[in-house]
Amino acid sequence: MPRTGPLKIKLQLYVGDERAFGPGRADVLAAIDHEGSISAAGRSLGMSYRYAWMLVESMNQRFAEKLVEAAPGGRKGGGAVLTDAGRRALAAYRSLEQRIMANARGDDLDLLSGMLKQEPASDPSAAAP
Amino acid sequence: MPRTGPLKIKLQLYVGDERAFGPGRADVLAAIDHEGSISAAGRSLGMSYRYAWMLVESMNQRFAEKLVEAAPGGRKGGGAVLTDAGRRALAAYRSLEQRIMANARGDDLDLLSGMLKQEPASDPSAAAP
Repeated sequence: MPRTGPLKIKLQLYVGDERAFGPGRADVLAAIDHEGSISAAGRSLGMSYRYAWMLVESMNQRFAEKLVEAAPGGRKGGGAVLTDAGRRALAAYRSLEQRIMANARGDDLDLLSGMLKQEPASDPSAAAP
Repeated sequence: MPRTGPLKIKLQLYVGDERAFGPGRADVLAAIDHEGSISAAGRSLGMSYRYAWMLVESMNQRFAEKLVEAAPGGRKGGGAVLTDAGRRALAAYRSLEQRIMANARGDDLDLLSGMLKQEPASDPSAAAP
């Protein structure tokens, strides 16, 4: 998730009331592209296979075209690859994240950031003289 | 949380790794301002008193100045009011949300939005002819 100073921005896309895309799903697409399977993608992100699979199913259901496709063969029931639609969706989401983050600076953010303490409140050593 | 078409944007501010401000805390501040106590604010948002109180404590600890202050008197152990800092933080956060949302439109968002199905996938009647 993009971060500038103290600010994190989370972009979520919905179909009706249902989550269709967001930071976790983008990470799963990128990991599938890198790892070549849902199970390896899940492992690389510290997710269970079931959870990673559920995110893929949810994306595939809420987009007009599938974003991830089974690739027959390989161990553990075969691999998975991004479709062209999957690549386009991931690239557009990253572009949107970066553009929004680049435009986040402004007086309102400066004011809010300037009101925050500089160190985590839960670390007593940080407040020591 | 602001929404434009299928996009929701969630802005979170951190002090180190700890959440300091975000949509839920902004809603709690606005509700305290309206309701005059943490318990009534929690009720109006469907939160337990304990959870609303915890959000207030967390904000008060992570900002240089307190955002919410106890107002002695009233039922249930007295009310609560926003401090000047609380009002400034809430106003800056709402301004940031609105500005970022207003700047979200672009080709990347259009592309991503255009790839989504138009109706919730879980509503079979929506797909019927």
